[in-house]
Amino acid sequence: MYTRITSEDNRTVKLAKRLLTKKGRDRSGLYPIEGPKLLAEALDHDAEIPFAFFCDEVADGFPRHGALAGRAAKAGVDVLLTTEKVFRRIADTETPQGILAAVRKPVRDAAAFFSRPGAIVPVLDRVQDPANVGSLIRIADAAGFGAVLAVAGTGDPYAPKAVRAAAGALFRASVLFVRDADAAVALLAAAGKRVAVADARGAVSCYEADLARDVAFIIGNEGGGPSRAFADAASLTVRIPMPGGAESLNAAAAAAVLLFESVRQGGALA
Amino acid sequence: MYTRITSEDNRTVKLAKRLLTKKGRDRSGLYPIEGPKLLAEALDHDAEIPFAFFCDEVADGFPRHGALAGRAAKAGVDVLLTTEKVFRRIADTETPQGILAAVRKPVRDAAAFFSRPGAIVPVLDRVQDPANVGSLIRIADAAGFGAVLAVAGTGDPYAPKAVRAAAGALFRASVLFVRDADAAVALLAAAGKRVAVADARGAVSCYEADLARDVAFIIGNEGGGPSRAFADAASLTVRIPMPGGAESLNAAAAAAVLLFESVRQGGALA
Repeated sequence: MYTRITSEDNRTVKLAKRLLTKKGRDRSGLYPIEGPKLLAEALDHDAEIPFAFFCDEVADGFPRHGALAGRAAKAGVDVLLTTEKVFRRIADTETPQGILAAVRKPVRDAAAFFSRPGAIVPVLDRVQDPANVGSLIRIADAAGFGAVLAVAGTGDPYAPKAVRAAAGALFRASVLFVRDADAAVALLAAAGKRVAVADARGAVSCYEADLARDVAFIIGNEGGGPSRAFADAASLTVRIPMPGGAESLNAAAAAAVLLFESVRQGGALA
Repeated sequence: MYTRITSEDNRTVKLAKRLLTKKGRDRSGLYPIEGPKLLAEALDHDAEIPFAFFCDEVADGFPRHGALAGRAAKAGVDVLLTTEKVFRRIADTETPQGILAAVRKPVRDAAAFFSRPGAIVPVLDRVQDPANVGSLIRIADAAGFGAVLAVAGTGDPYAPKAVRAAAGALFRASVLFVRDADAAVALLAAAGKRVAVADARGAVSCYEADLARDVAFIIGNEGGGPSRAFADAASLTVRIPMPGGAESLNAAAAAAVLLFESVRQGGALA
């Protein structure tokens, strides 16, 4: 009932392999997801899914997830059964879960992006590690601020590690890339956002700052912190109180504290 | 002026290699740290450091960090210069920073551990990934709750990945291992702590719950959540509001939100 593919020379297998590279994802507009949980979520969110591989030689692939394959086929997905050998070539994980699907990257529009009045905007400022990028998108999405600005130099949100860390957030969140920090500052100013950077020596505690509306939270590069352009444009420099004597939190922990402090202040209602 | 070691058969090189395994760390009571930043912090905190390798064949090792080597020697550390080839055998990182030191694990006492009245206790309940363990200890330390309980089955806080993620927090924080969740519940009850678990279907928002004093925050296993014993003992089931429609945050992000909500409520002053 489904096509079975045993050759690595198959066109779709080759395409799936290319999705492991940024170039392959950029050219095709597709990105790979793995496992039954993400595929079910992608279907829940009506994502466009051109094809899905089910490995029928491992228990976690086709035999056990036949119902999911049926659901995918009904939604128009080209369901392909394949061998473990072929599957291992297209999977990114070391212990593949037996399901790999290609999902169309959403196209985002800058104008629509800033249309929600009062909205909080997380900004990824050259965050490099894909796992950090995915975690940050997951946090932003959970907080209800799922429209994320990313400055060029930020790791690919559609890289396999980022997709895993995002845990489904990419089906809801929008990520808009901008050329550089100056362009981001201009966009944010035009949209009436206050630029906020976190700094251990900041004068105002994040619990005292007004973070409920129209704030752009700059999440800086892991090593170097926020770009100069954001530091210059910042109208808010907030401190996360760290009574324990640590100098800093990692990017994801700091973002979780700040974005959810905004939620506490009513930010998600904007 | 310092001993130079060029052979992999050297006793200290062999010991350093063994510190890459949990067994080696458990038997010796030592763990490895890498890089100038962690070594300087370890010295700042008067950690016991039996020896430190400086690679004198890479710029980031001895030639550039001669002053740090001198400071270590003055503090009683056995400073050993070595070749890049030997260094790569004892380093865990793929791009070694040219400095590797052994630090004595602190010995913790259960009684002293619970002596601070009102104190908040983060509990790692079989958190497996060492990077998560390290991140969680870093968050707990930053929040001022640096005495962490860990249930057996939790990843080794002294594994290289955990040490990197903890970013110096291990020089301040105490980690006390307990046999199982039942033992932890008994300890916590004796110390008058309220057990709090996070749950997306919890009745009370974390922003409305009283989290300022005597709370034990259970941070559950990545896949399975908190142990049954903690769920049964919980007198607080708090929900992190997630306006974005996500089901959950990852362990580190959830802990960051909850522990810093406790900070906001004055928890660190306890």
